[in-house]
Amino acid sequence: MELKLPKKALVTGAAGFLGSHICRRLLAEGYEVTALDNLFTGTKDNILDLMDSKRFSFVLHDVTQPFWGRFDEIYNLACPASPIHYQHNPVETLKSSVLGIMNMLDLALKTKAKLLHTSTSEVYGDPLVHPQVESYWGNVNTIGVRSCYDEGKRCAETLLADYRREFGVDARMVRIFNTYGPNMHPKDGRVISNFIMQALANEDITLFGDGMQTRSFQYCDDLMDAMRRYMGLPRDVVDGFCARHGLGAPVINTGNPGEYTIRELAEETLRQIPESTSKIVYRPIPADDPKRRKPDITLAKELLGWEPKVPLKDGLAKTITYFKGLVK
Amino acid sequence: MELKLPKKALVTGAAGFLGSHICRRLLAEGYEVTALDNLFTGTKDNILDLMDSKRFSFVLHDVTQPFWGRFDEIYNLACPASPIHYQHNPVETLKSSVLGIMNMLDLALKTKAKLLHTSTSEVYGDPLVHPQVESYWGNVNTIGVRSCYDEGKRCAETLLADYRREFGVDARMVRIFNTYGPNMHPKDGRVISNFIMQALANEDITLFGDGMQTRSFQYCDDLMDAMRRYMGLPRDVVDGFCARHGLGAPVINTGNPGEYTIRELAEETLRQIPESTSKIVYRPIPADDPKRRKPDITLAKELLGWEPKVPLKDGLAKTITYFKGLVK
Repeated sequence: MELKLPKKALVTGAAGFLGSHICRRLLAEGYEVTALDNLFTGTKDNILDLMDSKRFSFVLHDVTQPFWGRFDEIYNLACPASPIHYQHNPVETLKSSVLGIMNMLDLALKTKAKLLHTSTSEVYGDPLVHPQVESYWGNVNTIGVRSCYDEGKRCAETLLADYRREFGVDARMVRIFNTYGPNMHPKDGRVISNFIMQALANEDITLFGDGMQTRSFQYCDDLMDAMRRYMGLPRDVVDGFCARHGLGAPVINTGNPGEYTIRELAEETLRQIPESTSKIVYRPIPADDPKRRKPDITLAKELLGWEPKVPLKDGLAKTITYFKGLVK
Repeated sequence: MELKLPKKALVTGAAGFLGSHICRRLLAEGYEVTALDNLFTGTKDNILDLMDSKRFSFVLHDVTQPFWGRFDEIYNLACPASPIHYQHNPVETLKSSVLGIMNMLDLALKTKAKLLHTSTSEVYGDPLVHPQVESYWGNVNTIGVRSCYDEGKRCAETLLADYRREFGVDARMVRIFNTYGPNMHPKDGRVISNFIMQALANEDITLFGDGMQTRSFQYCDDLMDAMRRYMGLPRDVVDGFCARHGLGAPVINTGNPGEYTIRELAEETLRQIPESTSKIVYRPIPADDPKRRKPDITLAKELLGWEPKVPLKDGLAKTITYFKGLVK
């Protein structure tokens, strides 16, 4: 009789917003999950319901330090991702990106694990190409107040590409555009959590500039679908994809190309919380705030047969329900 | 009677081309110099004549590992800087930039040393702005074959800016444009060493593309002048300069804005080596080769009262003399 063991996954940043979703998703698919987090921006609340599962282990661990274990798949999500967090401790933020991916790539190399790294639309900076395609090199300030995040993430991409080329590590990455949903940090300063929290507290809803800058909003479940499909692909399919598109590493944008102005988002939020007495107010744009972002998801469609399905209205409704539970 | 001790300097990459020059310069000015190098691309030949000086200590050390000592000034030059070297071992190249500056910034922080970091015109990538000004954010591929150098250097700039903002480290940086002179690695694949070596060996001189791409060529002594002036400035002068120009960190271009096509360089080299029977031949441009580079040195002029003085012809003559000595 053959021993049938569950597949093993390692998730870094597991107590964060997206980390908690991928843990849940992997558990639902029968995986055994080891969940790392230093709880700097993540919170055990996000994974409390998983703690009793015998296929789930939480380890308080900082990814800037090496971690050892044998896994089939590694999901690298650790890094403070909101300006309000990463500007609080820029050096640690950059280290969590760069040393974090270094440690995970070393682990993947030694154990032949497959690795999925979460990069970000921030590598495009304040883009001069719209919508952003994966072959666009970006427009990023190396020495500004957002640089610790942007450049840390860019450097992590470079490391991944080189570990793959030099050592043959089977590593893939997604560039994640604005994503929202339950388990978002209520005070991370991101626009959707801000607006909902402000509306629930009957506080003014703050728009920066004239509120006409656009953003794309991807619901978390759509991203989880993309990530799982991506990791399900055999290596030769991924290699062929890179060769076909002249990409130095497997990288796809994941986001919802539906474009909304920040002002539309504020208005939709207020529509869905009719009891709120909040008003919309305007403030100056903060330093280095990127103006416009919209993913071109042609490559993700081609490689994964994937596109986002959840309309903003529906995702927003679920997120509002989550935040209402938090506020209570 | 007061104890009068020499000033102490730490130089990383000390056995490399530029490292050996700054060591020599510091010794000439009375400094005590500790010279680190892992001898991956550097060579003891470059510092052999310094070994007997009681104010000079060579330590075989890799900057990806921490180093401890008390110094007044740190000059961080360690990193393979030629494509032929850094593409040989891309992961180590990136680590030497990122972990190297991290270790030096940590040392500067703990010992209150003043730090000068050598960044590069490669942070501008394939620039869309010409000539390059310090406020230009660059155009760099994160996942290409040159990325280990470019993104490692970009990430080092970010770390420096953040250590300065977050911890108050007195760190400065130069973005060095093409520099040449004695002690260049004869086989580093750089254009000047290539041409001279080819001419001396009576081999064809290889131009990539049509040879009409331009480069700026700075003689090493000019760069040493800039670096020493920069480190001589009091901190408040440097801070005021950053504030005045809205720079997130003290950064100045150092290079020679005189523009030459690669073809002109080849022709001048052959003029200065009349005994050579070499011919000029053309080859396809390699992947990610940057097309055009020229420093705008307005800021260096303003801050340092400096500009390059050595004409290409004179610098080339000295460099040819050096290479002739090597070939013998």
